[in-house]
Amino acid sequence: MQIPDYKDVLAAHERIRPWIHQTPVLTSSYFNERTGAELFFKCENFQKAGAFKARGATNAVFGLPQESLAAGVATHSSGNHALSLAYAAGARGIPCHVVMPHTAPQAKKDAVMGYGGQITECEASTSAREAAFAELQARTGADFVHPYNDPRVIAGQATCSRELVQQVSELDVVIAPIGGGGMISGCCLTLTAIAPETAIYAAEPQQADDAARSLKAGRLIADDAPQTIADGLKVPMKDLTWHFVREHVTDILTVDEQSIIDAMRLVWQRMKIVIEPSCAVPVAAILNNPNVFANKRVGIIITGGNVDLERLPWQ
Amino acid sequence: MQIPDYKDVLAAHERIRPWIHQTPVLTSSYFNERTGAELFFKCENFQKAGAFKARGATNAVFGLPQESLAAGVATHSSGNHALSLAYAAGARGIPCHVVMPHTAPQAKKDAVMGYGGQITECEASTSAREAAFAELQARTGADFVHPYNDPRVIAGQATCSRELVQQVSELDVVIAPIGGGGMISGCCLTLTAIAPETAIYAAEPQQADDAARSLKAGRLIADDAPQTIADGLKVPMKDLTWHFVREHVTDILTVDEQSIIDAMRLVWQRMKIVIEPSCAVPVAAILNNPNVFANKRVGIIITGGNVDLERLPWQ
Repeated sequence: MQIPDYKDVLAAHERIRPWIHQTPVLTSSYFNERTGAELFFKCENFQKAGAFKARGATNAVFGLPQESLAAGVATHSSGNHALSLAYAAGARGIPCHVVMPHTAPQAKKDAVMGYGGQITECEASTSAREAAFAELQARTGADFVHPYNDPRVIAGQATCSRELVQQVSELDVVIAPIGGGGMISGCCLTLTAIAPETAIYAAEPQQADDAARSLKAGRLIADDAPQTIADGLKVPMKDLTWHFVREHVTDILTVDEQSIIDAMRLVWQRMKIVIEPSCAVPVAAILNNPNVFANKRVGIIITGGNVDLERLPWQ
Repeated sequence: MQIPDYKDVLAAHERIRPWIHQTPVLTSSYFNERTGAELFFKCENFQKAGAFKARGATNAVFGLPQESLAAGVATHSSGNHALSLAYAAGARGIPCHVVMPHTAPQAKKDAVMGYGGQITECEASTSAREAAFAELQARTGADFVHPYNDPRVIAGQATCSRELVQQVSELDVVIAPIGGGGMISGCCLTLTAIAPETAIYAAEPQQADDAARSLKAGRLIADDAPQTIADGLKVPMKDLTWHFVREHVTDILTVDEQSIIDAMRLVWQRMKIVIEPSCAVPVAAILNNPNVFANKRVGIIITGGNVDLERLPWQ
């Protein structure tokens, strides 16, 4: 297990800068009044390819050695990592192969193909996905860029919290959703290095709470194919992300499905931004746990904005 | 007819600054590639009360003399002006009475009441609205703040294009939707004073094209209660706004309903921002008329983001 360090984050930030946005930080007087906290929304829904995953993917793709370029890259992903890898591969002009569950939102499939990515569909379980991927990789010889359990990807995601710390001073807390744990691991990597006073919280759907149970049990628990509206958060942690979570995360708060939908709708309505269900999970966690966050300066990673506009959860 | 001038815009900007946001200007590589133009989206959907109308309303409310405060303000509005006047009156702590068509989106009614405004409902036609309002005003003695045909309101709206010109240099064109013409009049007021090289375009639904027909005919034509998805654009121009449009608008482009819906959906999907149908009208006009806008630097006023999330037009 190769654990990335903060020097890798600095190198990643230099490498990916031409290919990603420095996303804005938004505030909302409504949410501040409602929560009693000072909230800073780091808007990765405005990121290239619509999600923070462009950071890790471009870091992996633009760090590839010359001899790997012809075979290109490959991955399996519930959506945003696939988009982002296709975006990054398209930017470098190399092939990109993606295994996606057939249940992934059509908007994400269309976007992968729009960037020139090639999709192989599979069943929705983690095990089915990994089997389909093994076949693909054997056939193409492409470099596997794991959606989160990859030091290049984690170093790339870590540039997000680095920007946030540069944009907003003296944060008491940073909170992000947790699925596989790539973003949270990146937060751990950055914040322990340059903002060690900032507490790191994760938020997770109750219906896919393997990370919360892992933290409580002190050992890695991985569920296969849990069901939640937050489709980016169905995947389990792996050894590398579990390392960061176990070492540095203060707590993992879980929220029910209705709270996720309500929080998502409220952000759309009040802040006029399109966010995915996954990023509504930390917002719901803050709304449901005012005692944890009141009177604190809280950075929230808004992880992405790729939703099927035809299938909104409150309709 | 009292015609505001640029000194009124400067005074308005000073007066309203504590109560409004300087909204950001967003760009989109997708829309730039798609249109061949360089587009700058002035995001008044992020404005207080969710629309540019907060500018004109706060200018009127905070300019009121002491002796008018007890009776407060009153208006009739298809929605955003009502919200904005309620917001401004709430900020100054004075009463706000609003006549609204019963067909106005529930989200707008709720928001007016949330700011402390008092609603009187009426039928959806302009004539019915004006009759209900006359009764209300006689009863309360409140100061009438017209949604657009008011020099205080136009001077306030004009601060939006002033910000835009300060944020983005050398615009070839500014385009905004036209309903009653308050925003467009504000653009005329500002741009003729400080950016006289910038052409001013308006965009209008084909199904509510009285402004386009007026400009072509050279005389004011006012339809009563046209039907369009762009509910903010159903009202007709009046003498003051017609003065600015006739004098300074290069052209008024009209677009069909499906183009409005498609453009709205595309902005949500690609830019991850929530915009109303009204602000999709200029976006649709640019997509439908590439010959007019290609190779130009184009500022687009995104007028607001107040939509009923339960009733989206593509569902």
